[in-house]
Amino acid sequence: MESAAGTAAAQTTAPTADRIQQLQARAARLREHSLRSTSEAGSGHPTSCLSAADLVAALFFDVMRYDPKDPGNPTCDRFVLSKGHAAPLLYAAWAEAGAFPVEHLLTLRRSDSELEGHPTPRFPGTVAATGSLGQGLSVGLGCAWSAKQLDHRDQRIYVLCGDGEMAEGSAWEAVEIASHYKLDNLTAIVDVNGLGQSQRTMYNHDTAVYASRFTAFGWHAIPIDGHDMAAILRAFDEALTVRGKPVAIVARTNKGQGVSSLADRENWHGKALKKGNELEAAINEVRASAPHVELRPVPARVPSAAPRAVTLGAMSPPQYKPDEQVATREAYGTALAKLGSVNPLVAVTDGDTKNSTFSERFLAVHPDRYLEGFIAEQNMVGASVGLSASGKIPFASTFACFLTRAFDHIRMAAVSRANLKLAGSHCGVSIGEDGPSQMGLEDLAMMRAVPHTTVLYPCDAVSTERLVEAMARQRGIHYLRLTRPKTPVLYSADDAFPVGGSKVLRSGAQDRLTIVTAGVTVFEALKAHEQLAGDGIAVRVIDAYSVKPIDADGIRSAARATGCRVLVVEDHYAEGGLGDAVLEALAAEPVSVTKIAVNDIPRSGKPEELLKLFGLDAASIAAKVRELLA
Amino acid sequence: MESAAGTAAAQTTAPTADRIQQLQARAARLREHSLRSTSEAGSGHPTSCLSAADLVAALFFDVMRYDPKDPGNPTCDRFVLSKGHAAPLLYAAWAEAGAFPVEHLLTLRRSDSELEGHPTPRFPGTVAATGSLGQGLSVGLGCAWSAKQLDHRDQRIYVLCGDGEMAEGSAWEAVEIASHYKLDNLTAIVDVNGLGQSQRTMYNHDTAVYASRFTAFGWHAIPIDGHDMAAILRAFDEALTVRGKPVAIVARTNKGQGVSSLADRENWHGKALKKGNELEAAINEVRASAPHVELRPVPARVPSAAPRAVTLGAMSPPQYKPDEQVATREAYGTALAKLGSVNPLVAVTDGDTKNSTFSERFLAVHPDRYLEGFIAEQNMVGASVGLSASGKIPFASTFACFLTRAFDHIRMAAVSRANLKLAGSHCGVSIGEDGPSQMGLEDLAMMRAVPHTTVLYPCDAVSTERLVEAMARQRGIHYLRLTRPKTPVLYSADDAFPVGGSKVLRSGAQDRLTIVTAGVTVFEALKAHEQLAGDGIAVRVIDAYSVKPIDADGIRSAARATGCRVLVVEDHYAEGGLGDAVLEALAAEPVSVTKIAVNDIPRSGKPEELLKLFGLDAASIAAKVRELLA
Repeated sequence: MESAAGTAAAQTTAPTADRIQQLQARAARLREHSLRSTSEAGSGHPTSCLSAADLVAALFFDVMRYDPKDPGNPTCDRFVLSKGHAAPLLYAAWAEAGAFPVEHLLTLRRSDSELEGHPTPRFPGTVAATGSLGQGLSVGLGCAWSAKQLDHRDQRIYVLCGDGEMAEGSAWEAVEIASHYKLDNLTAIVDVNGLGQSQRTMYNHDTAVYASRFTAFGWHAIPIDGHDMAAILRAFDEALTVRGKPVAIVARTNKGQGVSSLADRENWHGKALKKGNELEAAINEVRASAPHVELRPVPARVPSAAPRAVTLGAMSPPQYKPDEQVATREAYGTALAKLGSVNPLVAVTDGDTKNSTFSERFLAVHPDRYLEGFIAEQNMVGASVGLSASGKIPFASTFACFLTRAFDHIRMAAVSRANLKLAGSHCGVSIGEDGPSQMGLEDLAMMRAVPHTTVLYPCDAVSTERLVEAMARQRGIHYLRLTRPKTPVLYSADDAFPVGGSKVLRSGAQDRLTIVTAGVTVFEALKAHEQLAGDGIAVRVIDAYSVKPIDADGIRSAARATGCRVLVVEDHYAEGGLGDAVLEALAAEPVSVTKIAVNDIPRSGKPEELLKLFGLDAASIAAKVRELLA
Repeated sequence: MESAAGTAAAQTTAPTADRIQQLQARAARLREHSLRSTSEAGSGHPTSCLSAADLVAALFFDVMRYDPKDPGNPTCDRFVLSKGHAAPLLYAAWAEAGAFPVEHLLTLRRSDSELEGHPTPRFPGTVAATGSLGQGLSVGLGCAWSAKQLDHRDQRIYVLCGDGEMAEGSAWEAVEIASHYKLDNLTAIVDVNGLGQSQRTMYNHDTAVYASRFTAFGWHAIPIDGHDMAAILRAFDEALTVRGKPVAIVARTNKGQGVSSLADRENWHGKALKKGNELEAAINEVRASAPHVELRPVPARVPSAAPRAVTLGAMSPPQYKPDEQVATREAYGTALAKLGSVNPLVAVTDGDTKNSTFSERFLAVHPDRYLEGFIAEQNMVGASVGLSASGKIPFASTFACFLTRAFDHIRMAAVSRANLKLAGSHCGVSIGEDGPSQMGLEDLAMMRAVPHTTVLYPCDAVSTERLVEAMARQRGIHYLRLTRPKTPVLYSADDAFPVGGSKVLRSGAQDRLTIVTAGVTVFEALKAHEQLAGDGIAVRVIDAYSVKPIDADGIRSAARATGCRVLVVEDHYAEGGLGDAVLEALAAEPVSVTKIAVNDIPRSGKPEELLKLFGLDAASIAAKVRELLA
């Protein structure tokens, strides 16, 4: 790793007084807007805006290259507000730049405004929704890696972090991975105002602590006074000269800077000033200390060309022989590699499990589009959100259970309206001997709860491949649940697997009950069907590969045709999974629904022993059917 | 922070040849057991055991003070295996120490054995279940803080970490907080074998990288050769002399050390040797290089007295006036402070939200039992699991939405059978202007999915206080869902709130439908009841404050008595919450269930606007009832 840091500052021309005064005047206006809009709203975090106003003024009115009329342009330099509670400052910057009239700032936090309490994509200048702390650096990493590695584009990503949020481990995941990939187009700015929500941070104004940590993690760190505009500009200039490592500008600031009654005072987090005297006195103080200069308009400066045109091809049909034994996780890897060959927008991220999820098959043929994220699932998902914000189609995969590590990031990806594809392998007790810590048993509940997600759970290689294809075709968050053991190929290449559909695998006019299942237990249900048929008991069997949306019509029809009796079988905990999806589909029907699911913390053992232990094997399913029909 | 590190090594007497040979011989036996037990099981991670065998031999047969016959003793020095996949090594160490016959090691991973693939509390030497990486340091932190701060006990905590898992941000959360609390009774040992699951780690064998990061985070770091027994002993000796900071022993090792065909080789992660020649050749190699000495028995060395006896008192009844306006989050803080006064085992952890969750009221009266965890929710929960393992009753609270950050830790807490109490404030859209990033809307789904949890959602201050009391009385994971806005006091101090119960708030013989709700929407449902009564429409209203277990009998009775019509109203996403709990309770009944829930990503706005937007306000509820009864 090479850095020109030692000499960069010296090489830079000192900022002129005019340049500094322009920015100080802009900073004062950002402070005024932040105070006024939060007071108008009656809530918000003005003091958190005031600490960062000088830094953001420098970025928006000197450093960044962008088109003020096009805040969502993904090819320009990008600004990620990791400390999302400073949203009024973000909006103020875009308004001052000319994106919209400053008067509109007064709609902050109103239910008819896109200027929400924390940034969401309703406001086009939002790269990714923030407000859950410690996530912005991962998003910025995804954007920076995309620009360098995928688009070979001259584009810089700036992420404004709070000091308090650097306590989040996810922030250090991003720091280590950005360093590993030498992302010198990524600059973090840490707003060290020393005050958290409920007390002082662990390190107060000690910028050296943060700087030494960034340095130990392989970054180039520049500690500065975050209210000294000349120092700010020198730091950003220096950042441009650093090669082979990301840069952290660690800025000592005061929360509430510019208003003496607020500056560096405790108990002012998340509080707006009262309209009237309190507000006006503060604004007068801000104005009084600002240089009185005429502000120059902000020109459009677009660093890169428009995104290159992309040609999408069609995947060839699945190539599996009937009754071949293939784990769905392996079929996922094969499908992913094929998908990558016809869709250049697909990129893959991993958490050091690529030999288990078989995403290594994508790596083998598309190494340039593969981000190894090591054992850091939060950053894996956060970086994928950044890839999505850069127009890519990220597939992130690890063990299903370890996606729980990233639930907050997934939740925020939904607020971001990200185009995120997740795959979780090793679901359920069928993994066997590794035991409960490695079993994904709450993943369906987690992914179903998030609005607008699509949740898929194929049982064989053919349906897996078709569903991978479908995931790339549709926008939004998709989750694919994958199984460790091999299962027989059940379907043919001609079968279609529409999202929201299901497959009726066994049916007859005499069916007295419907078994709804998915994944590994499909084969147990089919065996149970055979055993029961031998005793003259006819049951219907449905493969509900689309858990969300569930095929409500199909399941309702089947239930009505089979005596209003439904048995749901799933290798998942009892709450929130396929069983609850079926209950929901039948909520208004007089149908008796019984669930077989994993109803206790499992243990190590052979897969078949564990399926039996929780009543998920063919014999237990058949026994339950007999009991229900007795 | 003061450290004697510079001179400590020099002051220590050099380990004798006899001491070293005893430990080398033990290490060879640990290697042999690890190889043999995994081969017998046909799966497991022997190479990950071999890299750490020398470190663990030193700990168990020289450094740690414990009773080999009592592996679960919480007052002895404790060993947390953060790299849980090295479980065979843990079991081998306890067997060698004398906890059980070494022959029993061959039951590894069998469904009838407590020796699971990754450690769970079925084996009493497990402090907390591991296998999801990056969590052990938080558990160790909780134990170490408990020993120092709560028990004032001479007890040392040793945590064995993998190098790969140091990529998890959660590990660095624990590192920073342990340093903040100057936990010099905590020692981390990092097994730097340079190999992850699917490839080399980012830093391979570069111990200096890890050492510099620990140092930057305020630890005393000691890089060593992890196969040099004299160096290992010197490092542990040095660790004993360090004051005011935790110690990290960063050990360069080889994965598979001791077997030439495995040592430092890729593609050997999680693979057992074949029984027969392959295994026996490896064991012969291990034996050949071990010193041939007679092993001395392991004496019991117990550092501390038994836990002090604890006197529990009873909480005085809730002190609220009828119709007083009190937010349940505020009532939580008040109840927590009262609980702490009668139960000295209660300790509280926070994520810098104590002024929002009102856990600051506990801090005000019991500062010695309060762990400020700053903005690091994973560590907050992991440390709480450590407190539970030390016999305490930890209450961890933050915004409900930010508990999603710790889902993997909560999942593992369940595998650990931890006595963990969680409280999440700011649930639902009723928080208003701060917007979706701050709204807990998937928390019920998350907490219901975990086996054996209790999920509580009170609507007023009295029920909140009673439920806080109940949480401490029952073992296991409990979740309390709390609301931001003030709500009227609805109940009197005489009312009882058994877990699994519900309150019928309105009922009459003419009721044509039952509304089941909880939390803030209870009051909307009561208003809807009034509006409907004005039109001559009678409905029943139930406060389902116990979401899990749900009062299935009560809800079934009400449904049957009200025309088999149920309307569930909840300020939560549509999947996995109260609605699904009610559907489950009524799964076998011919009842028509309708859910009103938050069916989209919300936005900023006034609480009452947002309730209306999602149909959760009184008028919308009444309209839905009219529609259902039309």
